[in-house]
Amino acid sequence: MKHKVAVLGATGAVGQRFIQLLENHPDFEVHELVASSRSAGKPYSEAAKWKLATALPEGIKQKIVKSTDDALESKILFSGLDSDIAGTAEEAYRAKGHIVISNSKNHRMDEDVPLVVPEINPEHLDMVIAQKKKYGGAIVTNPNCSTIGLVLGIAPVFNLGIDMMIVSTMQAISGAGYPGIPSFDVLDNVIPHIGGEEDKIEDEPNKIFGKFDGKGIVPAPTRISAMVHRVPAIDGHLEAVSIKFKKSVTRDEIVSLMKNYEGEPQKLNCPSAPKPAIQYFEAVDRPQTRLDRDLGKGMTVSVGNLRPCNIFDWKFNLLVHNTVRGAAGGTILIAELMLRKGLI
Amino acid sequence: MKHKVAVLGATGAVGQRFIQLLENHPDFEVHELVASSRSAGKPYSEAAKWKLATALPEGIKQKIVKSTDDALESKILFSGLDSDIAGTAEEAYRAKGHIVISNSKNHRMDEDVPLVVPEINPEHLDMVIAQKKKYGGAIVTNPNCSTIGLVLGIAPVFNLGIDMMIVSTMQAISGAGYPGIPSFDVLDNVIPHIGGEEDKIEDEPNKIFGKFDGKGIVPAPTRISAMVHRVPAIDGHLEAVSIKFKKSVTRDEIVSLMKNYEGEPQKLNCPSAPKPAIQYFEAVDRPQTRLDRDLGKGMTVSVGNLRPCNIFDWKFNLLVHNTVRGAAGGTILIAELMLRKGLI
Amino acid sequence: MKHKVAVLGATGAVGQRFIQLLENHPDFEVHELVASSRSAGKPYSEAAKWKLATALPEGIKQKIVKSTDDALESKILFSGLDSDIAGTAEEAYRAKGHIVISNSKNHRMDEDVPLVVPEINPEHLDMVIAQKKKYGGAIVTNPNCSTIGLVLGIAPVFNLGIDMMIVSTMQAISGAGYPGIPSFDVLDNVIPHIGGEEDKIEDEPNKIFGKFDGKGIVPAPTRISAMVHRVPAIDGHLEAVSIKFKKSVTRDEIVSLMKNYEGEPQKLNCPSAPKPAIQYFEAVDRPQTRLDRDLGKGMTVSVGNLRPCNIFDWKFNLLVHNTVRGAAGGTILIAELMLRKGLI
Amino acid sequence: MKHKVAVLGATGAVGQRFIQLLENHPDFEVHELVASSRSAGKPYSEAAKWKLATALPEGIKQKIVKSTDDALESKILFSGLDSDIAGTAEEAYRAKGHIVISNSKNHRMDEDVPLVVPEINPEHLDMVIAQKKKYGGAIVTNPNCSTIGLVLGIAPVFNLGIDMMIVSTMQAISGAGYPGIPSFDVLDNVIPHIGGEEDKIEDEPNKIFGKFDGKGIVPAPTRISAMVHRVPAIDGHLEAVSIKFKKSVTRDEIVSLMKNYEGEPQKLNCPSAPKPAIQYFEAVDRPQTRLDRDLGKGMTVSVGNLRPCNIFDWKFNLLVHNTVRGAAGGTILIAELMLRKGLI
Repeated sequence: MKHKVAVLGATGAVGQRFIQLLENHPDFEVHELVASSRSAGKPYSEAAKWKLATALPEGIKQKIVKSTDDALESKILFSGLDSDIAGTAEEAYRAKGHIVISNSKNHRMDEDVPLVVPEINPEHLDMVIAQKKKYGGAIVTNPNCSTIGLVLGIAPVFNLGIDMMIVSTMQAISGAGYPGIPSFDVLDNVIPHIGGEEDKIEDEPNKIFGKFDGKGIVPAPTRISAMVHRVPAIDGHLEAVSIKFKKSVTRDEIVSLMKNYEGEPQKLNCPSAPKPAIQYFEAVDRPQTRLDRDLGKGMTVSVGNLRPCNIFDWKFNLLVHNTVRGAAGGTILIAELMLRKGLI
Repeated sequence: MKHKVAVLGATGAVGQRFIQLLENHPDFEVHELVASSRSAGKPYSEAAKWKLATALPEGIKQKIVKSTDDALESKILFSGLDSDIAGTAEEAYRAKGHIVISNSKNHRMDEDVPLVVPEINPEHLDMVIAQKKKYGGAIVTNPNCSTIGLVLGIAPVFNLGIDMMIVSTMQAISGAGYPGIPSFDVLDNVIPHIGGEEDKIEDEPNKIFGKFDGKGIVPAPTRISAMVHRVPAIDGHLEAVSIKFKKSVTRDEIVSLMKNYEGEPQKLNCPSAPKPAIQYFEAVDRPQTRLDRDLGKGMTVSVGNLRPCNIFDWKFNLLVHNTVRGAAGGTILIAELMLRKGLI
Repeated sequence: MKHKVAVLGATGAVGQRFIQLLENHPDFEVHELVASSRSAGKPYSEAAKWKLATALPEGIKQKIVKSTDDALESKILFSGLDSDIAGTAEEAYRAKGHIVISNSKNHRMDEDVPLVVPEINPEHLDMVIAQKKKYGGAIVTNPNCSTIGLVLGIAPVFNLGIDMMIVSTMQAISGAGYPGIPSFDVLDNVIPHIGGEEDKIEDEPNKIFGKFDGKGIVPAPTRISAMVHRVPAIDGHLEAVSIKFKKSVTRDEIVSLMKNYEGEPQKLNCPSAPKPAIQYFEAVDRPQTRLDRDLGKGMTVSVGNLRPCNIFDWKFNLLVHNTVRGAAGGTILIAELMLRKGLI
Repeated sequence: MKHKVAVLGATGAVGQRFIQLLENHPDFEVHELVASSRSAGKPYSEAAKWKLATALPEGIKQKIVKSTDDALESKILFSGLDSDIAGTAEEAYRAKGHIVISNSKNHRMDEDVPLVVPEINPEHLDMVIAQKKKYGGAIVTNPNCSTIGLVLGIAPVFNLGIDMMIVSTMQAISGAGYPGIPSFDVLDNVIPHIGGEEDKIEDEPNKIFGKFDGKGIVPAPTRISAMVHRVPAIDGHLEAVSIKFKKSVTRDEIVSLMKNYEGEPQKLNCPSAPKPAIQYFEAVDRPQTRLDRDLGKGMTVSVGNLRPCNIFDWKFNLLVHNTVRGAAGGTILIAELMLRKGLI
């Protein structure tokens, strides 16, 4: 029997991805859809302007959208709420005993809320236990889309000891939601600014790679500097990374670790866990945004063009599908893992 | 009276820009057009498929294209030759007494050939004198398009002492010439590789910022690491730069130097010298490729979004019009300056 | 001495084009800027997010934006008002004695308001006289951007007798204003719908080609069917036209008429009147959106690829710069002509 | 047991699609790969630069590419050969007893070669019998990509009696193969010309809709006029169609026929036969290129925005995935149907 779940922010860009990825999901069934009061009371097919290139699932069309004020029957809530309301709304759901697994930024850095990439820090999910005691329910968060690509790309080599990294991103327009970036702003253009994004990429990895000491997270000490850019691509964030290790590391070591990387989601056969987790390319011109974003159904992070850096040790490119692994898909993988770890 | 010039590689992408920018030029008049033997003997309007968004100048249409074997009447030759023939062809022209001002990569790192950005190292042009003695003529080179943007963007602060820089580029497709990048490769995509480009960006600046000791160039010691990317934009290379100075430098110092930067071309009123040479933007989302590439008729380099770097000292974005300042326009400015310095 | 003018809707996409095109205009000087109450009271550089690839004119930056409630000193008002307020606002200005030359759709089909393409129906401008008597001021309108391209493209052959036309448009995203089309909707896509556009293209030409009988317009009887599409281009509407004449017409007749076409604006040397008004291309692959939209500073309409139609008589493509000739530039040309005809 | 097949032109754009679509195909197994002499003798993964967004199938990587001179073991050959060699090469294969099912244009209009869209004219496949007698093998052809979209879109209503149609296409760049259209030619642009395409769209439908009288095809008499355009989209040809019936037809009739359309491939459950064959959209802004091209795994043709035409009777838009249904996928469906009809 499948677990009934609700999608919060169901009409938005992330909400639509949740609905798409949860169609025929072996663990979860979309039972409730929640959106703003403007949409509440309408069938979903009326409330939402479906923007994905697969058909809106039949079972969703006629579901009546609920508002954030309505009580929900589902225990598990996937949240793609806008950040201007996610803060209080997610807390309210937690207080009512729900498990909120959220893609919103609001609670990512909360002391008692885990920020999870399932391959990297599954043990942080134990923070849910203390939350349940304190609040009745719990909030678990998924990192920023660019952060997810970065931390997964370096996860295989993290234990070699990373001293510092400089990252430059080239991010697809779907990362800005819908309507998001006006076409007049991005066609034949690159925009060298995304509000708040650099801070997230610089701060979130150290929480993710931090140690859970039973109470809270002791952050990792890696120094990161990020420069972010919006480019005219639909989906897929490409990142150029220069990395300095604390000690000398060979190319073979790195490539071998990348190729053989797996985490708990792969070992536990979570339905959305990609195999491989990391696709390493020997070709110097890969990964490429359009060609590689859909690997592993959008859940694989690609790495390629590993070459020596004149200043740091190594440089390479990585690619993450920002609305699948970097948003809805990553969030669903957290839920799959929590289920298998008995945390739901 | 205008100086008669020839355009080498006249049917190619850079050649077309030369023709466009030399229309109604106060110093130079396109007298001869040189292209491959396939084009030679035909009127230019037949030999070339004109690809620019301004009309092919009337006076050019009926000019008969010459081959590289033909003797040329013009003393000054602007070269946009393909690198597979530029090496020997440019040497042959030099041996016949011509002044070849070249956008091709072949002779950029030759010991006795200057690599010039007119605002930065006009004194290197004196190397022409020794060349003339030795060969009869001379070759002068224009740097790689991304290099030009980078060195101009940092030129105002170079004397503060730059220790190292990490650069990530997002380069327009016109940089690959014509036919260049297939549309299937770049639409909705980013390509993280441009053959040979990273080496050029890492090596050329130190020759440009080097000291001419009367004989050769003593290169500057700045360490540079570059990661290059092709993005779906027509014209304009955007670069993300993290920079470490040898000593502490304030934001105000940098901005003030950028805003007030000028070089010999501005002081001597070279016709193509942009004023300002550097456009500094306070807006955090500038420069942008499409909005700012045409500033100063494509000759101004834009800089913006200067902010502290977590690892180095400062980071910022810069933009250069790759086929104007970064190619034909930069080459023409060299000729204008040589004229005013009595070197032609 | 220049005529002082106001730009209505000055912060919007069309308003910005007015400001750009009126910089250094020989007849007009932007004296007042009008926008919504949200912008009123602020300096223009704060109120507007300047989106054009030329710098915001210095003299405009500090001008304080007025609201539509404020009295205006300028007699001539160029209107780029949103259609939801243009209707009543333009009437109110007319009642106060202003000459409103408008790009908005609201009054285009009003019985006593002329709908003008200066080359085609300058005599319709005489309707201004009756308006002034009745209202104190007058409204003159500029057609829809796609209409302008179509009617100019066929104007040279209109008197040969056009029976019917089928038109398919491929329209740039700037036609939707700003923010306009979300990038997620149009990248790697074609959208086969633009609200209300087909009706305008089918109806407006017959008013423009109609006869002014001293009182009103007797519309022309040409049957037009339009299918409209949005494509990922910045500026420029390309249109595919199949045309049936009332009698047999040769290719030579058509081409000759196109090449030699001119109207009153050319004869009276209006500053914005392009020469030629129509650029006819013999090349089968022209006009192209990016290559040809800027011909005549965006005021020339291009026509090419004239070939026999299996069903009607002839088919061809035409191109119009939708925000210059098709909007602000066309409106300014109306004013220039009115000035020379003594109607202002 | 699966039928062994060869892919001709295996390294090209269409060849790659064949390989992609034949992975795990229930009827066919790619046994041999044929390409130019330049590629022959190399493993496929070396010979081809794989350009699709799914991984190159494992079983294909190490297959040694054959040349067109090599004898082939497979009976069924899927041809994506370049038109400059397809003519004689396909005839040679036929003479050796192979069944060549070709996407190339060369033999489409041959008197004894069927031009097949499986839903529309499956009975034309019987022409294979006479070919086999005469030549030993047979050639069967798949129409031009735009033609396939057009004829499928109108197939449901063809029997109502179509008098004439005017069609304007907006075609994706993948239709030009690889390298195909240079990015410099198509970014921010529309190109109003594709060599030979208009003739194909005007001529092929009448063969497809023609009657097979046991000997040859008596073509249908529909008059078609086509105007073709290249737009910056990756995949998917959108077509705007105005249609005149011989007698009055209601909107309901058309929509009902479209929604209920199916052909022999659907009835015989051919693996690639999409259900529905035609997706009819009530939304006025559909189909859209990126959103709808993948319906039915790229085999469904979409139709939408049916509205009255001022001149003919009705107008609408249709969309076909040009490299799936319009090329490799359509060709494979022909083979599937031939198998089920006992023609292979």
